[in-house]
Amino acid sequence: MTTQHRSETFQKAEIAKIASKFVATASVEKRHQALTMIKQQIQVYFDKILEANNQDAAVSREKGVTDAYLDRLTLTPERLNSLITMIEDLVQLPDPLYLIKEQSQRPNGLIIKHVTVPLGVLGIIYEARPNVTVDTAALALKTGNVILLRGSSSTIHTNRALVSAMQEGLHNAGFPKEAVQLIEDEDRTALDDLCHARGLIDVLIPRGSEKLIRKVTDQAVVPVIETGAGNCHVFIDSSADPDMAINIAVDAKTQRPSVCNACETILVSADWFEEHGMNLITALQAKDVVIHGDPAVKKCSNKVLTATEEDWKSEFLSLDVAMKVVTDINEAIDHIEHYSTNHSESIVSNDSDHVKRFFSMVDAAALYHNASTRFTDGFEFGYGAEVGISTQKLHVRGPMGLPALTTTKALIQGSGQTKA
Amino acid sequence: MTTQHRSETFQKAEIAKIASKFVATASVEKRHQALTMIKQQIQVYFDKILEANNQDAAVSREKGVTDAYLDRLTLTPERLNSLITMIEDLVQLPDPLYLIKEQSQRPNGLIIKHVTVPLGVLGIIYEARPNVTVDTAALALKTGNVILLRGSSSTIHTNRALVSAMQEGLHNAGFPKEAVQLIEDEDRTALDDLCHARGLIDVLIPRGSEKLIRKVTDQAVVPVIETGAGNCHVFIDSSADPDMAINIAVDAKTQRPSVCNACETILVSADWFEEHGMNLITALQAKDVVIHGDPAVKKCSNKVLTATEEDWKSEFLSLDVAMKVVTDINEAIDHIEHYSTNHSESIVSNDSDHVKRFFSMVDAAALYHNASTRFTDGFEFGYGAEVGISTQKLHVRGPMGLPALTTTKALIQGSGQTKA
Repeated sequence: MTTQHRSETFQKAEIAKIASKFVATASVEKRHQALTMIKQQIQVYFDKILEANNQDAAVSREKGVTDAYLDRLTLTPERLNSLITMIEDLVQLPDPLYLIKEQSQRPNGLIIKHVTVPLGVLGIIYEARPNVTVDTAALALKTGNVILLRGSSSTIHTNRALVSAMQEGLHNAGFPKEAVQLIEDEDRTALDDLCHARGLIDVLIPRGSEKLIRKVTDQAVVPVIETGAGNCHVFIDSSADPDMAINIAVDAKTQRPSVCNACETILVSADWFEEHGMNLITALQAKDVVIHGDPAVKKCSNKVLTATEEDWKSEFLSLDVAMKVVTDINEAIDHIEHYSTNHSESIVSNDSDHVKRFFSMVDAAALYHNASTRFTDGFEFGYGAEVGISTQKLHVRGPMGLPALTTTKALIQGSGQTKA
Repeated sequence: MTTQHRSETFQKAEIAKIASKFVATASVEKRHQALTMIKQQIQVYFDKILEANNQDAAVSREKGVTDAYLDRLTLTPERLNSLITMIEDLVQLPDPLYLIKEQSQRPNGLIIKHVTVPLGVLGIIYEARPNVTVDTAALALKTGNVILLRGSSSTIHTNRALVSAMQEGLHNAGFPKEAVQLIEDEDRTALDDLCHARGLIDVLIPRGSEKLIRKVTDQAVVPVIETGAGNCHVFIDSSADPDMAINIAVDAKTQRPSVCNACETILVSADWFEEHGMNLITALQAKDVVIHGDPAVKKCSNKVLTATEEDWKSEFLSLDVAMKVVTDINEAIDHIEHYSTNHSESIVSNDSDHVKRFFSMVDAAALYHNASTRFTDGFEFGYGAEVGISTQKLHVRGPMGLPALTTTKALIQGSGQTKA
């Protein structure tokens, strides 16, 4: 246990570790009771939470933030109600703890059971999205973990109101209120401290911009789960059904452009482009999409901007899209390999050999054949809850359900076995 | 892909990434052929490898290293043969790749299959143990990965000979020889570079002393699997069968004291100690164990040293053991919680409530009831091969079999699904 620091953050992490002993051994009924009590206290303080949020919004508005930023920061009654519903739904999901994942009896008679147990202490570092405060705290408690929440200073009043309501709920359920703690960052060392709380924090999950995630992975000494950026591609193969291909490309780009599983680059086989390229461009432009195209695409429409090297790399998160005409699937795979963030990649094709090749060669958390990239999330995958979308390969890859917040213990039953 | 550095290590990592595309898509027959060819080249260069090892041993002997160090560094014909056998055994194990771990059909018709795939590029940082060179390279290739090996400068001649033989084998099997590369550390930046090769190295595994592991975890920007220290405890409960308890304690301490799953502290319930403590002490001392005891233990024998705070924390890796008399199981659990490295912990008891409590409260990779801690390894767990023993909670905990070197891809089959 690190003791060289005694910052407030380290002190909170130490208390969290103690609280985690209680929460980790609480029965599923007790954990569900805590969630229900938390929900009730959010209902009790409903108006106060919205007031606190108004206060944060006013400060941000004065600072002249973008509308998108203000929108993410804002809690409406509807959004707060959806958090309450989320907690109710979470209570209905089966308990992810103490499941036997693997069991064997060894020739020497030892019986080995691998059971799921909580990770322990989670640290979440996130931006001005107050829904994350409740979302991740509820997911943590469902899985027997405790949580340290380090949100943005621009949502500090909202987060204080939410955490205070949740702590009252915990108290009412007989849980230590330190199972959910807010890390305030007045001395600006909180992020550093969380990254270095070795032996106290079992996993740190940065949620937000690529810059934030890099900041955490660059310095973290504690284990991290990255929930990274999505520079997702849709590749339209020469054999693609034209209507299906256009529908998928338009959906992947426009259905919700601000999320990580939205499409950022469309790659089109030259054969297909010759016949249907103009229809694709028209369909995208009809949805106000700004196309950054290579010379072949630019030729088709004077509204197409010239694609730069930066565009191929960009996670636009807007109605912009990069578009390139490729000679064949090999060029498409090479392009994806070079620019992909390994999140979600789609091929639209009726050539099963090409699909097989794409599925085998492209390295990503989720690969789609004849479907939009927009399905990469915990709910669409059927997990009932989502912790985030991992873009790393260790522990969990792609959408994270509740099991991502658990680890295992091997419980070994003997009758006096020795190695000698 | 990081390009600001162009050190030799980064260049090798870049080549490894390219080679990994080939190895990841090679069929299991091809991968097994590569392993067999590697085995053959180790046989061809058998004597040259031993000569190179003699050269390393001579240098180390001149430097005046300890006998234990020299022993770990030395390859005997028998040890080299056992590496050959290991490769043969590995070929017999089932393919861990392209297994469907999870499959579901969603209400919208999407079929989601999670299949196991290679991690990609592994980096191993280890000390003067040339067996690790062959062990980990073979495990990497079995699982479709490529590997960068950064061993100790004191085994450089042995590692060069081994890697050169393995590269010839790879070449003979039609594999890129860069699937196995030795990182030499002439400019002393190799470890740093490996830790920072983000986008090139998928996982870094430090194997060796706690100091080495800390050095890696402290600075690594790439994901790490820790294979950490084992400060393992045997707790003898008041109800323990005396013969069984003494056998287990003696075995856990003495059967092979230099390994991480050996026992370092014995905790004894006061009741049991009063009746059987002297027998336990005598049995340990008969095996030349040096006991570092608390006052109650010291009273029993003038050969017992006084246990210090440092002793409770120590992974002795020798015939030393710390011993403490505790009032009850709660004191034992508190002690373990405070000093454990969460590796392997054992309770000897006939009280099922106490066992349940121990299994629930103690946080470790492996918990034993009535068995020695010495069984925490991949072979004893039935994995057929061992990558190491993870003391972290993410990805894999405890003994790592071949699946620990894989990740998953979600392959999603659609028929034109869009989110809108």
